[in-house]
Amino acid sequence: MATFVPANERRALSPHLPLGDRREARFYGKDILSVSQFDRDDLEYIFGVAKEMRAMVERVGTFDLLKGKILANLFYEPSTRTSSSFTSAMERLGGSVIPINEVRYSSVAKGESLPDTVRTLECYADVIVLRHPEVGASAEAARYARKPIINAGDGIGEHPTQALLDLFTIVEELGRVDGLTVTMLGDLKYGRTVHSLARLLSLYDVQLNYVSPDILRMPIELVEELKSRGVPQAEYAGLEGALGETDVLYVTRVQKERFDDLGDYERLKGAYVITPETLSAAKEQMVVMHPLPRVGEISMDVDQDPRAAYFRQMEYGLYVRMALLAMVLGKA
Amino acid sequence: MATFVPANERRALSPHLPLGDRREARFYGKDILSVSQFDRDDLEYIFGVAKEMRAMVERVGTFDLLKGKILANLFYEPSTRTSSSFTSAMERLGGSVIPINEVRYSSVAKGESLPDTVRTLECYADVIVLRHPEVGASAEAARYARKPIINAGDGIGEHPTQALLDLFTIVEELGRVDGLTVTMLGDLKYGRTVHSLARLLSLYDVQLNYVSPDILRMPIELVEELKSRGVPQAEYAGLEGALGETDVLYVTRVQKERFDDLGDYERLKGAYVITPETLSAAKEQMVVMHPLPRVGEISMDVDQDPRAAYFRQMEYGLYVRMALLAMVLGKA
Amino acid sequence: MATFVPANERRALSPHLPLGDRREARFYGKDILSVSQFDRDDLEYIFGVAKEMRAMVERVGTFDLLKGKILANLFYEPSTRTSSSFTSAMERLGGSVIPINEVRYSSVAKGESLPDTVRTLECYADVIVLRHPEVGASAEAARYARKPIINAGDGIGEHPTQALLDLFTIVEELGRVDGLTVTMLGDLKYGRTVHSLARLLSLYDVQLNYVSPDILRMPIELVEELKSRGVPQAEYAGLEGALGETDVLYVTRVQKERFDDLGDYERLKGAYVITPETLSAAKEQMVVMHPLPRVGEISMDVDQDPRAAYFRQMEYGLYVRMALLAMVLGKA
Repeated sequence: MATFVPANERRALSPHLPLGDRREARFYGKDILSVSQFDRDDLEYIFGVAKEMRAMVERVGTFDLLKGKILANLFYEPSTRTSSSFTSAMERLGGSVIPINEVRYSSVAKGESLPDTVRTLECYADVIVLRHPEVGASAEAARYARKPIINAGDGIGEHPTQALLDLFTIVEELGRVDGLTVTMLGDLKYGRTVHSLARLLSLYDVQLNYVSPDILRMPIELVEELKSRGVPQAEYAGLEGALGETDVLYVTRVQKERFDDLGDYERLKGAYVITPETLSAAKEQMVVMHPLPRVGEISMDVDQDPRAAYFRQMEYGLYVRMALLAMVLGKA
Repeated sequence: MATFVPANERRALSPHLPLGDRREARFYGKDILSVSQFDRDDLEYIFGVAKEMRAMVERVGTFDLLKGKILANLFYEPSTRTSSSFTSAMERLGGSVIPINEVRYSSVAKGESLPDTVRTLECYADVIVLRHPEVGASAEAARYARKPIINAGDGIGEHPTQALLDLFTIVEELGRVDGLTVTMLGDLKYGRTVHSLARLLSLYDVQLNYVSPDILRMPIELVEELKSRGVPQAEYAGLEGALGETDVLYVTRVQKERFDDLGDYERLKGAYVITPETLSAAKEQMVVMHPLPRVGEISMDVDQDPRAAYFRQMEYGLYVRMALLAMVLGKA
Repeated sequence: MATFVPANERRALSPHLPLGDRREARFYGKDILSVSQFDRDDLEYIFGVAKEMRAMVERVGTFDLLKGKILANLFYEPSTRTSSSFTSAMERLGGSVIPINEVRYSSVAKGESLPDTVRTLECYADVIVLRHPEVGASAEAARYARKPIINAGDGIGEHPTQALLDLFTIVEELGRVDGLTVTMLGDLKYGRTVHSLARLLSLYDVQLNYVSPDILRMPIELVEELKSRGVPQAEYAGLEGALGETDVLYVTRVQKERFDDLGDYERLKGAYVITPETLSAAKEQMVVMHPLPRVGEISMDVDQDPRAAYFRQMEYGLYVRMALLAMVLGKA
């Protein structure tokens, strides 16, 4: 589980800003570490800024809101998608990027600690995006950094910007969150994506359904946590029982590396594949989402279906990350 | 052999643009996949734009023609030269670059398909340059992408921007193509560079000479294809017979990895080395070209010879790639 | 030892510029290869420009002094710190960067020579920063390049920009260099950092103290060289004897890879660790420096001490590299 850093422990760039009514002040100089730091008003504000980013990108492509600002894109493990998305977000805002993908081979390989690396990079950059294989790495970085840290995934811990873009996708595609039934499919045990999204959804009035192989069920601790917040939840062995009522079908990858026995993986991986036939039993107004990459969980035949939202989801991610960068740098 | 995508199958960004007489409209939103997609008028147009790019770079270095545009530089196999050249081209036009060199280790390693990777990246970028080890990869990417794909080499298939820069080098150095004798030397069997250049040259009135070790001769299919287009061709066992009439000597590297028997490689590699003595029998007004990197095929003593055009060739490549980027983004 | 290229052998971009009184003309188009190329007036000029850079960054963050200029950041071995620092320096000056970190796998792996790689890159870029594992690599690159080469470390040879930033740190932190006692601690045998810094310091009126394990003592050749320039030097087995008079304590990492016998490493590595207790015997007005990364040579408890200057040192590095880039591109 991630170590969440309470707001009062976080080192803000300008800790004495009046918070007052101005919500944007709540984000200026702050870290984005965990979905647990946001309330509904925060989300509404973020999505409002993301909508503006979308409008600006569609109208002019790129603009100079963050001209002169520098992002250090610090990836301790590779992630083409997330790294490219933040790079594009910064560049579309007129800022520059220091790409750091080779940490395996460099200072870090020489034994440098994460706090030292971060305190060095903040001499060169205005904001640091951090992807790290260890749970709690972003929180640790934020304890030492003066500049804002954005968590781009720390092991099986959190990936808050993914959860935000997932929720923004639902908002943009279906126009609301309250009243929806969200069905999560696949690896619900190790998938930090579904964990973070479920936590964000618990701020709304939703029904959550879980469909997974037995060894990959939603962790009981998380189910209890959501229950204590009053979220109605149901588990299903197969998709059939849940699909008819589903507004959002969130599909995840069953990762080979999770299995000790590769035979188990081979037997299971095909059991939760979405095809055009699957969708024939679904609502007209539902959406299929996936954090990508997919490796066969959704047939390519589904891509043409208007309900297939997973590539649009990538694009919404750009707008959410633009919004977050602008917010923590005080330019939203 | 590469799968060439016919123009009517390509998905243009703005497929309803009037093509009319305006040649630039033929390139806006289009993919650059194969030399076979160009006719002589296209080449003249491209070289005209490349000449303008050269003049602008020489005058001001960089300008803002593509300000706000983003290039995803997607390299599935490393190529410092080609990657740096496209990066510089985009930056000299005022645009930004998302560098993606680590695909080995990331989404793709997790099993993501090329179409999915491309459809993700086009959410972040305006144009995608693709280097891939498999023949036909760029054509496959282009079938799925809405944004323009530029083929930066797909295995032993095509490398159209290299062929274009080679031809542009001839035009700039010798002032014409018609009437020239072009002698290709070295590995003519696996060298996609010479194959693509030979195809482009077949649009002109040229004589082609081939000089290679027996196991690395020009493929018979390509010889037949060029013959059917009326290109006079001749094969030589050694350079002596061909050199006197040569206007363009195109030297290629004999790659160690092509040989099963390293002894064969060691014996052959020195047999086609260009030295100042070699050039003493050549015309005054000829040029020596090489796609680089060289590993001894041309002695460093030749570098000072005014006929040594291979470093200028790199620079012409910058202008051709600037031209192509501007053209497919509708700004030429 | 590095091969230093005499000024008259260096190929300047504009070799016929009047040198006159205008010191900036001494750097326009020139290479930065070795600390031995600078005299005290040069250093004063460089630090003056670096101070201006600092003031500009603190006031506006980024500005467009090098807009339109391109830096090729050519790293044959990885160095997150140095690479990021130059990237940030170029971006804060409004310029662009071609990042080249994968040379292992590309042209170079195919056997391309350094001169060819450099002559290719200068077709795309305006200045080349080079990190290379071999002593003398930068000097060799500079012999072939028309564009300025900045040495970012060549094996155990030189790392002149590190030495310049070290000296600039001393100037900024203590206000002067003359009259100071500088104590160097750790691996003084292989540390190119301390070698280069000692050479720069020999231009001033300083006392140098050396504290190191016996097998890692300052090389006798360098001690003789400094002695011949009149620098008072003293060796100590432990820090106690030297600390009381020390104004600058320069700590270096004892690198595991230097030891044939890892047992020796384990036994020695802890022997020269700086703790708050260590500093209790030090002057109030001294500074602790370290080129970073550290791996335990300085306890993290020391970080809060106002004398701990090693993170500020990183930031001074940014200003020095901005100054050098602006100077060699004629914009200082």
